[in-house]
Amino acid sequence: MTDQMRRIALARRPEGQPVPDDFLLERGPVPEPAAGEVLVQVTHHSLDPYMRGRMDDAGSYAASLSIGETMIAQGVGVVLASRAEGFAEGDSVTGMTGWASHAVLRGGELRKLDSRVPATTALGVLGMPGFTAWQALREYGRPKAGETLVIAAATGPVGAMVGQLAKAQGLRTVAIAGGDEKCKLALDKFGFDAAIDHRAHGDAASLRKALAEVCPDGVDIYWENVGGKVLEAVMPLMNIGGRVPVCGTIAWYGGGASDKLPQVWRSILTKRLSVNGFIIFDHWDAFPDFLDEMTPKVAGGEIAYLEDITDGLDKGPETFIAMLKGGNTGKTIIKV
Amino acid sequence: MTDQMRRIALARRPEGQPVPDDFLLERGPVPEPAAGEVLVQVTHHSLDPYMRGRMDDAGSYAASLSIGETMIAQGVGVVLASRAEGFAEGDSVTGMTGWASHAVLRGGELRKLDSRVPATTALGVLGMPGFTAWQALREYGRPKAGETLVIAAATGPVGAMVGQLAKAQGLRTVAIAGGDEKCKLALDKFGFDAAIDHRAHGDAASLRKALAEVCPDGVDIYWENVGGKVLEAVMPLMNIGGRVPVCGTIAWYGGGASDKLPQVWRSILTKRLSVNGFIIFDHWDAFPDFLDEMTPKVAGGEIAYLEDITDGLDKGPETFIAMLKGGNTGKTIIKV
Repeated sequence: MTDQMRRIALARRPEGQPVPDDFLLERGPVPEPAAGEVLVQVTHHSLDPYMRGRMDDAGSYAASLSIGETMIAQGVGVVLASRAEGFAEGDSVTGMTGWASHAVLRGGELRKLDSRVPATTALGVLGMPGFTAWQALREYGRPKAGETLVIAAATGPVGAMVGQLAKAQGLRTVAIAGGDEKCKLALDKFGFDAAIDHRAHGDAASLRKALAEVCPDGVDIYWENVGGKVLEAVMPLMNIGGRVPVCGTIAWYGGGASDKLPQVWRSILTKRLSVNGFIIFDHWDAFPDFLDEMTPKVAGGEIAYLEDITDGLDKGPETFIAMLKGGNTGKTIIKV
Repeated sequence: MTDQMRRIALARRPEGQPVPDDFLLERGPVPEPAAGEVLVQVTHHSLDPYMRGRMDDAGSYAASLSIGETMIAQGVGVVLASRAEGFAEGDSVTGMTGWASHAVLRGGELRKLDSRVPATTALGVLGMPGFTAWQALREYGRPKAGETLVIAAATGPVGAMVGQLAKAQGLRTVAIAGGDEKCKLALDKFGFDAAIDHRAHGDAASLRKALAEVCPDGVDIYWENVGGKVLEAVMPLMNIGGRVPVCGTIAWYGGGASDKLPQVWRSILTKRLSVNGFIIFDHWDAFPDFLDEMTPKVAGGEIAYLEDITDGLDKGPETFIAMLKGGNTGKTIIKV
C-alpha cells in the first residue's frame, strides 16, 4: 500500500455559489482497515446538489460538513482489503466513500453491487437519486392516473426517474429544463409529455404563462427540487388537494431572494396543499424494495438513464460548480 | 311576516384591512320559504377570520363572495316557518345564515341544536372553530405526548381548543397572544404551559428568542393561523419531522410582505416538515364524531370557552374590523 490516497476536502464555507478555492486536494497515506472494516479503491463517485447544502454551517442541521472534512459522496469501487465478514478482495461495492481515491468503511456501511447492471448505476438511476424519485413520489406525491406532474431539472437523475415513473402510472408529465437540448432529451429520451425551457422565460410570470398552456387541467403534483422562479411560477397553478414533495431548493443554495412567502402560504391554505420535506437518508428501510422493483427494469431497458462522467478526482470541484449552474446533462459522476 | 329583513352585504372589495364602507346594510322583505325550505329568525351569527379571505377576488378560489352578496356566516336562530321535513316552528337551529336577521335555507343545510349546551356554542367551541381545532390537530398535527405545540391567536376559539386538546394529550403547549390580559387568559383559563405577548416583540428575531426560552426541546407542531412575524419566528425552531397545519394567515389577509420564502422552504426540506393546508369545509363527514365526543365535555365543563358577544346586526362591520386587528377576546359573536 505505497499508493497515496487523494481526497477533496472542504477548505472553507462558500459565500453564495461555490468557487474552486472552497475546496482543497489533500494527499496522505492510504488508510489501513481495522477489524470489521474494508478498504475500497474508489473507481467513481457521485456529485449531487444536496452536497452544496452540507457545505453551509446551517445551525441545527446536524449533517453539515466541518472545515477540512472530505466532501461527502457516494462512491463505487473495488475491495482492496477486507477485515469484515462478507467482503473479499475484488468485490464490487458501493458506500459513502466521499470525494476520494480510497475509503475505509465498516462492512455494514457497504453494499455489494448487482452484476446485472453497470456499477455506476448504483450512483444514479439505481442509487440515491433514483431511490429519492421512487420513494418520495409514492409517499408524498401520491400520483393518480390522469393527474398532471411538473418537475424542474427534469433531465437530472431524479427528474428523469420521476417523469418515467409518473408517466408509467398514467400521469401527464411536464418537464422544466434549461435549454433546447435538455428539453429535447426530456421529450425523446424520458418520455415527458411537454417540456419548457426556463431560460426562455426571464421571470416567474412568463414561465407561469408557458406552464399554464401545457397544463390545461392545472397541476396536481409539483416536485420541488429547485425553488426560486419555478416555485413562484407553479404555485398559482396548483389544483385543490395538490402535493408538493420538497426534495431540494437548488436555486437558493447560493443565496437568492423571494418576497412571495405570503402568496405561497396562501396557496397552501386555499388549495389545501400537502407540502412535505424529504431527505432520502431517512428512508433506507425501503431501499431493498426499490432495488428489487427497479433493477430488472433498468437491466431490461424499460427505464432510461443518462450519465455525465468526468475523468479525474481533481476535476470534482469544477464539475460540481458547473453542475450547480445546470451545466451537466444526466447523472454527474467523477471517474477517480 | 311584515317585519323587514336586514342583512350586511359586501359593498366593495377591501384594499388591505377592511373599512366600514366595504360593507352595506340592506333592508328588504322577509323571504318566504319554498317547498323543502325553512325560514329562520337569526338570533346570533358568527364572525371569523376566514371571512376576510372571502372578500377578495382570489381567482380560482371558488368561494369568493360577489359584490352585493350577503356576508357569509354561520348563525343560530329559531324556526319561524318550515316547509321541510323534520323542522317545526320554534326549533333551535344552526346553518349558514350569513350576516342577516332572517335566512331561508333548505332543510339539509340546517342542524337542530343540542339542548345540553347554550345555542351560541354551536358557533364556537362546538362549531366551526372547535371542529377545525379538533380535526386538523388529529389529522395534520398528529400530536404525541411529550411534544411541544406552539399556536398564535391562542385565546381565540380555535387556539383555545387546540391548546386544551393538546394539553390533554400530554403535550407542552405554548401560547402566543396579544397583550398581558390575553396571555393571562391563555395560562389561567385555557391551561397553556407558557404564553408570550407578541406585542412585546417588534420583530421575528426577538419573538424567536422569547419562544426558544419556553420551548427548550424545540417545536414539534406549529399551528399556523396567522403567518407573518410569528411564522418567521417559529420556523427555525422546528424539530425534524415537525408538522405545520396551515389553517389561516390572518397577518397577511390585508396584504403584507415577507422575504423569507427561501428560508422557510429550506426549513421544510432540512427539517422534513409536513405542511398541510386545511379548510374545514372539506371535512364535514367527521363533524358528528366531533359533536359526540366534545358536546358532553363542554356541557360538563371539561373544556373551557369564552364568547365575546356584541349586540346589534349593524355592529357587524366594526366588530369584524376590530377582530381582525386582535380586538376581540374569545369567540366573536353578533347578537342580531
